Amino acid sequence: MQVGKTQLRSIWSEGSKIKIIDQTLLPFRLKILQLSNLQDFADAIISMKVRGAPLIGVTALFGVANEMRIDASQRSLNNAVSKLSKTRPTAYNLFWALNEIKTYLSSISKAERYEAALSFANLKAEEDIERNKKIGKYCGEQILKSSSKETINIMTHCNAGWLATVDYGTALAPIFYLHEKKVNIHVFVSETRPRNQGAFLTAWELSNMKIPHTVIADNASGLILQKGLVDYVIVGSDRVIHSGEVFNKIGTYMKALACKEAKIPFYVCAPTSTIDWEDQTRGKDIIIEDRSPSEVTDIMALNVHNNRVGNYRIMNVDSNAINPAFDMTPRNFVTKIFTEKGGSTPGNLWKQKND
Amino acid sequence: MQVGKTQLRSIWSEGSKIKIIDQTLLPFRLKILQLSNLQDFADAIISMKVRGAPLIGVTALFGVANEMRIDASQRSLNNAVSKLSKTRPTAYNLFWALNEIKTYLSSISKAERYEAALSFANLKAEEDIERNKKIGKYCGEQILKSSSKETINIMTHCNAGWLATVDYGTALAPIFYLHEKKVNIHVFVSETRPRNQGAFLTAWELSNMKIPHTVIADNASGLILQKGLVDYVIVGSDRVIHSGEVFNKIGTYMKALACKEAKIPFYVCAPTSTIDWEDQTRGKDIIIEDRSPSEVTDIMALNVHNNRVGNYRIMNVDSNAINPAFDMTPRNFVTKIFTEKGGSTPGNLWKQKND
Repeated sequence: MQVGKTQLRSIWSEGSKIKIIDQTLLPFRLKILQLSNLQDFADAIISMKVRGAPLIGVTALFGVANEMRIDASQRSLNNAVSKLSKTRPTAYNLFWALNEIKTYLSSISKAERYEAALSFANLKAEEDIERNKKIGKYCGEQILKSSSKETINIMTHCNAGWLATVDYGTALAPIFYLHEKKVNIHVFVSETRPRNQGAFLTAWELSNMKIPHTVIADNASGLILQKGLVDYVIVGSDRVIHSGEVFNKIGTYMKALACKEAKIPFYVCAPTSTIDWEDQTRGKDIIIEDRSPSEVTDIMALNVHNNRVGNYRIMNVDSNAINPAFDMTPRNFVTKIFTEKGGSTPGNLWKQKND
Repeated sequence: MQVGKTQLRSIWSEGSKIKIIDQTLLPFRLKILQLSNLQDFADAIISMKVRGAPLIGVTALFGVANEMRIDASQRSLNNAVSKLSKTRPTAYNLFWALNEIKTYLSSISKAERYEAALSFANLKAEEDIERNKKIGKYCGEQILKSSSKETINIMTHCNAGWLATVDYGTALAPIFYLHEKKVNIHVFVSETRPRNQGAFLTAWELSNMKIPHTVIADNASGLILQKGLVDYVIVGSDRVIHSGEVFNKIGTYMKALACKEAKIPFYVCAPTSTIDWEDQTRGKDIIIEDRSPSEVTDIMALNVHNNRVGNYRIMNVDSNAINPAFDMTPRNFVTKIFTEKGGSTPGNLWKQKND
C-alpha cells in the first residue's frame, strides 16, 4: 500500500533476497531488513518484526525457500519446518503454510527445490493479496448494503491491515475498499495494549492513506459502543474454529460483548487459511500464547525532544505482570465472518470448506 | 497506610500547612507537596496530583479552609467554592463536599471561619477513613461468607485504594480488611490506560503492603474472567446514581459485561457521599469528562538506564486521539454496592438514603 509516494508490501523478494519492514520500529522508524538465514526468519516472527497471522504464514514460506537456497536436503527441509513451526503457537496460518510447503517440496527433487520453494512462496504471497481484496469486497459490499449513513463509523482492534498480511489487510480490507469507492468512513482505532499495534500500526496505515481516524484507549471502546457512535466493529483473526469461535488479539472478546449489548454488528475478516477444521473442542484446547511480561511492564516510545526511540518502564518496579496475547470470542457474539469465499454466519462456516 | 516504615495519608494538615502526595509522579517518585493558595488546590485536582472521588472532595474542603485563612469574606468563600467546583465534572463527592462546607461556613462569623473550616476539613478527612473501614468490613465479610477458596482472587480496575481517599481506600478496603485478617488473597490489577493508575498506584499500594498481585493489560481482563480465574471484581465509583447505575473509570463497563457472562460477582465499593440522589435520567444526562488527548498519545515513564522520569510519545505522530475518562455501568451488571451503611443490590440503594 501507499507510504508517502512509495508502494510497499510487508514482505517481498528481490531475486534471492527476502526483505521485510521491521514492524517493531513503526510508526517512529521505517526500516527495511533483509532476512538471510533460518535464524533471521525465526527471530523476525518471534520478536514480531513481522506479525499478523497471514504475514507470519508467508514469512515462514519465504524462510523455508531461503533455507532451500542454502541446503536443499530433506533433513534441512524438515529442520526448517520444525524450527519455524515453533515460533508462535496461536496463528493457524503458520502451521497450514508449513504443512503445505513441506508436502509440496517433499515430492520435488533436491536440485529443483529452491526454485520451486521461492516460486511457491511468491505465489502464496500473491494469493494472499488476491484473497484479501476479495474479503474487502465481500465485507465492504455488506456494509454498503446495510448502511445508509453519510459517514460510516467503524471500530477496529489491533492491526489487521496490510502490515498483518502481504498487502491490503483483512479487517482493514473493507475499509480500504470503501475508501477506494469514495465512501465517507471514520475509523476508531483501539490502541491495543500491550504492544500498541492499533496506535502504532493501524493509525500509521490509515494516516498514510489519509483515512479519517481517531485513536482511543482500549478501555474507551465500551463507552463508545454503548453510546452508539460505531456502526460496525471489524477485527481480523489468528485462528477461527470451524464451529465459529474466533481467536484474536487480547481485548477482542470484550469488544464483542459490548457489541452484542449495543446491537452493533461484530464482523471478523480472515482468509479460509485461518480456519481450524480439526479442533473438536470449540477452541477450549487451543494454546493461547503467553508472551513476555516485559511487553506489559515496558513500552517502546519516542522522546520527542531528541527524536530517539527507546524502551521505558511503565509499571511499578516491584510488581509482576502476565501477558496473554489472544482471547477467544464465542460464536454467539460473532455476527458474520468474511473470507475470500464470502460472508458467513459463524454456525455455517463449514459450508466454505469444500466450496 | 504503610509506605516502607512510614504511615502516610494522601492529604493531611500540619498546623496551617496542607500537604499532599504528588500522585502524578508515583510509582517512580514519592514527592510531598504543600498547597498554599486556591490555584494550587485547583491545579492539584485538575492535573490529578490528587485524584479519586473521595480524595477530590476532601482536597476541595482543605482548599476552602486554606482560602479562609487568606481571606474569610463571603465573597472569597463563594469564589473558592465556585473555582473548585469547576475542576472535575464527574466526581459527585466534589459537589457534595463543597455544598456542605459552603452551607456550614455561611452561618459562621468571618472571624471564626478559618478555624471552623479547617476543623470541618479535618473532621471530614477522619470520617472518610472511618467510612472506608466500614466499607472494607462489609464487603470483606460478604466475601468471607460466600467463598471457601484457599486463595481468593480479586480483580480491580484503576486505583480506588488509599491514594484515592484520605486513607484505606474504597475498592481496596475489603482487600486490606482480608489481608489484616490473614486471608490469602491475590489481586489482578488492570493497568488502566490511559493514565495507568492500576499499574502505577494500585500496584504500588499492594507492593508496599506485600499483598500478592499481578498486573495485566486492560485487554486481558476479558480472557481472565472468561477462564474463571477471578472470584470477585471490585471497583470504586466516581458517582453512583440512586437507581443503581455506576460511573467509574473508563474500562469498568466492559469488565462488568465480562463478569455477567462468566457469572462472577461485580462489586462496587463507595461511600454514600458518592451517591447522586438527584438524577432522574438513570445517568443519561451525566457529563462524562473528556480529558486531554495527550494522556493517550503520551505517557509518563521511567528510563531505567538513568533513572529519569519523562513523558514519551506512544502513538503515531500524525493521528488524533480522544480521551473519555469515565464510563457508565448499567445496574443490571452490578451485583452489589457496598457503602459505609452496608451492602445493597443496586435496585435497593434508596433504602440507604435515610437510614
